Amino acid sequence: MIQPNILVFHPDYLIVEAYTKSIQRYGFKSVQAASTLEEAIKLLPGTEVILGWKFPLELLNQPIASSVRWFQSMGAGVDDLIADSSLPQDIILTRIVNQFGTYISEYVFMFLLYIAKNGSRMRQAQIERQWDPFISESLAGKTVGVAGLGSIGSEIVRKARAFDMNVHGLSVSGTNASLVDDHFSADQWNEFVKDLDYLILTLPLTDATRTIVNKDLLLAMKQNACLINVGRGALINEGDLVDVMQSGHLRAVVLDVFEIEPLPKDHAFWAIPNVYVSSHLSGPSTIDSVSNFFVENLKYYIEGQPLNGVVNRERGY
Amino acid sequence: MIQPNILVFHPDYLIVEAYTKSIQRYGFKSVQAASTLEEAIKLLPGTEVILGWKFPLELLNQPIASSVRWFQSMGAGVDDLIADSSLPQDIILTRIVNQFGTYISEYVFMFLLYIAKNGSRMRQAQIERQWDPFISESLAGKTVGVAGLGSIGSEIVRKARAFDMNVHGLSVSGTNASLVDDHFSADQWNEFVKDLDYLILTLPLTDATRTIVNKDLLLAMKQNACLINVGRGALINEGDLVDVMQSGHLRAVVLDVFEIEPLPKDHAFWAIPNVYVSSHLSGPSTIDSVSNFFVENLKYYIEGQPLNGVVNRERGY
Repeated sequence: MIQPNILVFHPDYLIVEAYTKSIQRYGFKSVQAASTLEEAIKLLPGTEVILGWKFPLELLNQPIASSVRWFQSMGAGVDDLIADSSLPQDIILTRIVNQFGTYISEYVFMFLLYIAKNGSRMRQAQIERQWDPFISESLAGKTVGVAGLGSIGSEIVRKARAFDMNVHGLSVSGTNASLVDDHFSADQWNEFVKDLDYLILTLPLTDATRTIVNKDLLLAMKQNACLINVGRGALINEGDLVDVMQSGHLRAVVLDVFEIEPLPKDHAFWAIPNVYVSSHLSGPSTIDSVSNFFVENLKYYIEGQPLNGVVNRERGY
Repeated sequence: MIQPNILVFHPDYLIVEAYTKSIQRYGFKSVQAASTLEEAIKLLPGTEVILGWKFPLELLNQPIASSVRWFQSMGAGVDDLIADSSLPQDIILTRIVNQFGTYISEYVFMFLLYIAKNGSRMRQAQIERQWDPFISESLAGKTVGVAGLGSIGSEIVRKARAFDMNVHGLSVSGTNASLVDDHFSADQWNEFVKDLDYLILTLPLTDATRTIVNKDLLLAMKQNACLINVGRGALINEGDLVDVMQSGHLRAVVLDVFEIEPLPKDHAFWAIPNVYVSSHLSGPSTIDSVSNFFVENLKYYIEGQPLNGVVNRERGY
């Protein structure tokens, strides 16, 4: 088997080193590591495959990158890569798929349960040493809507079944429509959200989904509904969400992704009651899982088989 | 259909009134309500069925209670009723079963996820407006042990499957042994706990289970294991647990039940780091669910059919 020359890029040199070792352990020897622009420039000539995170894309339409055939992103979302026109069309772009469902669905259910069972009231009672045997809600019988029914959304649906929830879904392609009780298409957002107790966004960011969650849609939701975003920050019009929360509409909002990351220190989200902020951590690209995915793809690549996670740049994911 | 005379007893007169109305709505007319000892004394003569919570049991072996045939408790645990010898043997005692699985399993998974995903670190980061994208654990692949495989334990097992956990179980009767990957009997506690990441207690309190979780057993658990008790407080030797936690053994403990409830203000549990205290609220006896259960049993009673939740006083539950 002829092994292609591989370049691993990540701004953190410790992470890039760990990736390199991990890939080498699978028997691939021609792996080089870069964590700066200078190193990338030096190592690009002769590179055929890039496994990258925050790679300096502007290098890819220059002569030093003429041997690059395939770019594997370390993440699931590739909106930034697609938006950058310096990534040549003839380089195959792949993203991680099927690796985040477990993690992200656990994150989602942690918050669904924390909100439904009122974990913060339990915590407060403990701090105050108060015996406070209140009756909480149950997820059972509630309606959750999952926007995006790819590998992440499908895993959320599966767990929602175990909690005896009614499950609605919205997806562009309709591929996994059969998993949900009621399926809505991309032109039925208002219809989709109006009966939900919980709306979960797992969508990719595309021209069609950017700020799809705006004031009109938020106000079409039940006043007591909850929103969880584990997709991309820009799915939501953040200013609208701040306004709507401050007006008392929506019971709780959980945000793991933001228009600008890290979330600026002075952003209103940090301090609005019932807004839960986390640091884009729901679906971590662990070195093990990404290496695993990449190495499997690498074998397909060498055999000339179709790769997993190939991005359709027109579709946007 | 001949309707028996029913007495509903609960120390809170608003609750007792709500129960009375709820039962009457099902078409049972001869329902009386008491919330004090005096009212109970007045209404007992002629009463055949009691639906009760914290009922003054000492009345039941007196002549005024001679017509009582059946006592339905509003709770799942009946250790206190069995321990009180004034409840005559010829009064059928039933407890609530099959009503708490949904609530309690949601409570359990809220804490399993909160601990595994490190929800408190997310919360702290938000308070400090710190961007902190740490990598958390996953429940998937971890081993949970459920002690007690009745209706509550079985529901925890079902949800654990959706989280792709390995599921071990310990039960006295062995009835639901087939639900779990590895089943242990009551003489195999040490064997049972040693490989667990999470131990969940859903057992009834009996002579055989009282303080079954003592220092030896706690130290037989993995140092990084977690313990959740939704059964009865006295399943655990509380002094031993305080010692073990303070020695740094065990990662987290979640306690919804205590030897003395309400938990005394000066109890060490309130303030030990990684001990989560809640106020016996994981399986609330809601008026709807208890009325429902009672009315179904009432129909069986009138038809002379076997009742649900009949307590075997020798077995202890």
